[in-house]
Amino acid sequence: MILDKVSSPSDVKKLSISKLTKLCSELRSEIIRITSKNGGHLGANLGTVELITALHYVFDCDSDKFLFDVGHQAYAHKLLTGRRRLMEDLRTERGASGFLDPSESKYDHFISGHASTSLSAALGIARARDLSNQNFKVLTIMGDGSLSGGMIYEAMNNISDTKNFIVILNDNQMSISKSVGTMRRYLSKLLSSRRGLSFRKTLSQKLFPFHRTWTFLKCILSTMKGHNIFEELGFQYIGPIDGHNLNELIKVFTNVRDVANYKPVIIHTNTQKGKGYEPAETDVTNLHGVDVSNVTRYCDVFGKKIVELAKNDEKIVCITAAMKDGYCLSDFAKNFPNRFFDVGIAEEHAVTFAAGLASQGYKPFVCIYSTFLQRSFDQVYHDVVLQNLPVRFIIDKAGFPGRDGMTHSGIYDIALLQHFPNFTIFSPSSARGLSDMLESVVLKNDGPVAIRFPKAEAKDMPDRFGLGKHILIIPIGDLLANVLEAVKISNTNPTILDVKYIMPFDFHKFYKFAGDHERIIVIEEGVFGGLSNIILKELIGKKRFDLIAKIEFLNAGLAPVTHTSRENQLETNGLSPSKLANLLMGLK
Amino acid sequence: MILDKVSSPSDVKKLSISKLTKLCSELRSEIIRITSKNGGHLGANLGTVELITALHYVFDCDSDKFLFDVGHQAYAHKLLTGRRRLMEDLRTERGASGFLDPSESKYDHFISGHASTSLSAALGIARARDLSNQNFKVLTIMGDGSLSGGMIYEAMNNISDTKNFIVILNDNQMSISKSVGTMRRYLSKLLSSRRGLSFRKTLSQKLFPFHRTWTFLKCILSTMKGHNIFEELGFQYIGPIDGHNLNELIKVFTNVRDVANYKPVIIHTNTQKGKGYEPAETDVTNLHGVDVSNVTRYCDVFGKKIVELAKNDEKIVCITAAMKDGYCLSDFAKNFPNRFFDVGIAEEHAVTFAAGLASQGYKPFVCIYSTFLQRSFDQVYHDVVLQNLPVRFIIDKAGFPGRDGMTHSGIYDIALLQHFPNFTIFSPSSARGLSDMLESVVLKNDGPVAIRFPKAEAKDMPDRFGLGKHILIIPIGDLLANVLEAVKISNTNPTILDVKYIMPFDFHKFYKFAGDHERIIVIEEGVFGGLSNIILKELIGKKRFDLIAKIEFLNAGLAPVTHTSRENQLETNGLSPSKLANLLMGLK
Repeated sequence: MILDKVSSPSDVKKLSISKLTKLCSELRSEIIRITSKNGGHLGANLGTVELITALHYVFDCDSDKFLFDVGHQAYAHKLLTGRRRLMEDLRTERGASGFLDPSESKYDHFISGHASTSLSAALGIARARDLSNQNFKVLTIMGDGSLSGGMIYEAMNNISDTKNFIVILNDNQMSISKSVGTMRRYLSKLLSSRRGLSFRKTLSQKLFPFHRTWTFLKCILSTMKGHNIFEELGFQYIGPIDGHNLNELIKVFTNVRDVANYKPVIIHTNTQKGKGYEPAETDVTNLHGVDVSNVTRYCDVFGKKIVELAKNDEKIVCITAAMKDGYCLSDFAKNFPNRFFDVGIAEEHAVTFAAGLASQGYKPFVCIYSTFLQRSFDQVYHDVVLQNLPVRFIIDKAGFPGRDGMTHSGIYDIALLQHFPNFTIFSPSSARGLSDMLESVVLKNDGPVAIRFPKAEAKDMPDRFGLGKHILIIPIGDLLANVLEAVKISNTNPTILDVKYIMPFDFHKFYKFAGDHERIIVIEEGVFGGLSNIILKELIGKKRFDLIAKIEFLNAGLAPVTHTSRENQLETNGLSPSKLANLLMGLK
Repeated sequence: MILDKVSSPSDVKKLSISKLTKLCSELRSEIIRITSKNGGHLGANLGTVELITALHYVFDCDSDKFLFDVGHQAYAHKLLTGRRRLMEDLRTERGASGFLDPSESKYDHFISGHASTSLSAALGIARARDLSNQNFKVLTIMGDGSLSGGMIYEAMNNISDTKNFIVILNDNQMSISKSVGTMRRYLSKLLSSRRGLSFRKTLSQKLFPFHRTWTFLKCILSTMKGHNIFEELGFQYIGPIDGHNLNELIKVFTNVRDVANYKPVIIHTNTQKGKGYEPAETDVTNLHGVDVSNVTRYCDVFGKKIVELAKNDEKIVCITAAMKDGYCLSDFAKNFPNRFFDVGIAEEHAVTFAAGLASQGYKPFVCIYSTFLQRSFDQVYHDVVLQNLPVRFIIDKAGFPGRDGMTHSGIYDIALLQHFPNFTIFSPSSARGLSDMLESVVLKNDGPVAIRFPKAEAKDMPDRFGLGKHILIIPIGDLLANVLEAVKISNTNPTILDVKYIMPFDFHKFYKFAGDHERIIVIEEGVFGGLSNIILKELIGKKRFDLIAKIEFLNAGLAPVTHTSRENQLETNGLSPSKLANLLMGLK
């Protein structure tokens, strides 16, 4: 295997083109083998094999800085930068992160889990370089899906005069689902423009090395003519180029390496998600992130129920930021194409757009994962809360992020939203619970609502619990399952208060039970400052220090979590069935 | 006065062009008179007088929906929509908000305080209209500064096929300071393009009413040719047009009103900030928001000190999101032009850009007001905290927003940032305190730091306080001044703990004092969940319920504040000297 001889990026440079081609094929096999074992982002990583190999062949990643936007297209980069052992245990606590992580390797220059950040980070690095008179190149590989995020344009607005700044646009016409929007159509127009292809190929491959001055003039002239959006925004546009043609990539990269000191360059490459692995080529969505699951998850329950509800209420609309499939919304989109809006990776827009719909009497369900809703904090406050608009937030992947790791933590949503007046926060503890909540939030038009749940199985749960003894245990949402298991393991008999409504919290019920129990345990899959803040504010206001003294708050710690299973993360944070059982036995 | 006869927008329609011209002149005088009395955004509002008058003349704001981005250019709109009495008391609790507010008037369709939101809101309203087969037009007036915010592009990416969607680009070449970036240069190119002007004037004014089909074909053809960025993004671009020429505006608006059902339209108008008032025309920055202040504020101290520090440390760089003057950074920019970055109204980019600089050993100071830093929560977490990069956040306007009102509340920053591991949060209580902090954070390279302060006078304060009796009082930062005044008023003698360091909080000192006092009062200009969360977490962890029972937490309430002075807002929330004095006397 050629890959066995690549222990650092400099080894890539020693290979012939034919060996590089073989190397690409080996990388592809490795990626398929590893993801079939550990899950991960198969399609995107198969699509960038030649791009990354050519980059390492042409550029010098010991001095040049490679960035990725978003990080889940960098497996080949990891395999070429001395991380084969770590990749063997990809997305586990013993192995590599599925994203970029500077603490993992000196060849990862910047963290990358959320989309559309790379140009801003790259520009910071480039400005630092220029201020300190250094000379390296800054390169980012960016998927076309990232172009739907506003940050990219904020960065582009500031890049224009930056030299040795190279963007490789990895255009696979997909983000997680199919890419959407005007920019997508625009890129397709560029891809299909033969004139552009031949003229620019000539420009970039033939003229550059021989007639630099003339080429430079050409660049200037072509910018003044304003060929396309990227050129209008100050970039030299090169492309489209076949992103799987190693020869072509190497030629273009070599030319760009030598001329990029005139102005920023964007190289538009046409790639295929899942390239080289037939199942991933044809079923790109399901093979975006490989995570086989045969159970019914909360998102499945949501996807099914919302179709049923929308049949009887034509005001219901669904908005998602590139997560149609993550939220099981295919059926909804099929049944109500006019009432389904995939706005791209554009969480800020998604929320204010929903507020606009709600201001006209519509009932928007905004489907954004907990970690990505962090992008919209200001819009939730400014456009939804201040106008008290009935936007329904459906927050999946709330709590621990599992194998995606720290960049995808969903432990802040309760703590953030509970600061807002008139916000209602629900958290279902069962499939039936979620279904009931959805029915009730359709009718609730007097303010914003959030329903938050983890990416986990939605189980059947008992509806009511009898009175136990001594200990009152209050788990939020899905953690009820862990509590029930802990009760079984520990053979204890606590009273269980199934908190489906986090805010407003049912203090009437709480007071009713709290006095009769010696200890109270409040459990939430989120930081201290969520339900804990709601309870403490109330008890301090009422001067019930006797009750505060009884309570134990179990929360997610603040330290970034390792990429491992959600179960392991719950265990580490003391929220697993066995840890909860130990606690119960200790208090018995 | 003609304005006296305009009690609702329909009255505008009855006026002749010559009377409209006179009306504009009256509106201008009113705006100057009102802002000279109450402060407010003079320049921007003088610039939109003709635009707004022409809009009300041509469109029907009883059915069509006018939106504004950002809201501080709508005074003429307010004066024409039955709010003259409220405008008399502009930006006070008895009068109109300085921004748009649906609860103030049925002619304000959407809230608007933060920039770059209007296209998203307008698109939501337009989609709702289309779903319910209604027929009105949606119009937004947007300043060119808003084009530096990424949300605009997220929205544009989703607008392309929307009919009766009209954007009036109010291009005054300014946001708060001078507009920056590639897009700005691009707009200037468009403005100076005579060809564009004459060709498009013909197209929009002459052809439209007579040859609709031909015009429509022209539109399609011109889009395919891709004349400019807006056209590439699916808009019909019309302009540039003189935004102060009432005749031309009315003609163009009338034509657009009749043809906008083909595709979205953007009308590029060239306006002058401060138009018609010589002082505001020439000193646009200082007259952006009129708020005369002769005292030395915290931001003045910052602006001066950072220049001094930067002279001795070439790694110091300053980044601001269109707030050069808000942060008194003119001197810094003049002294260190290469180390000063005004990135436009682009808070997301600003933070990740700073993280990029910090990753290369630079010492970025990110200058963003508390309310706007809400835009960057995800970037602070993902790009700064997870990489533990020493980015210094200088957070002005922390706490109550004063006359800007609820959209500009800065009461969340501590509550948000305290969730992050290894974050340091400072809050100065005096000019000297801020100065010292700045010196120390320059040397602090082991993680992110925030310094937060209100837009208020930085006074001289005693450095140390002697021991008092019975009551321990712990004010954060600037509220120390109110506490000292309260002590004087109440003639009490509490022990004062001047908390400059919110996180990590000095629990050693806290425990030392707490045991010896009967009552503890913790005061912060922010929501419950900031320092309160830090203290409660610690005390609950240490089972010091005895201490919890002694503490009174004084915080900002959750209800949106009225636009009035910060002093009034402190009073309403129990944090004014007199309210604190009452509390102290009650506890004595």
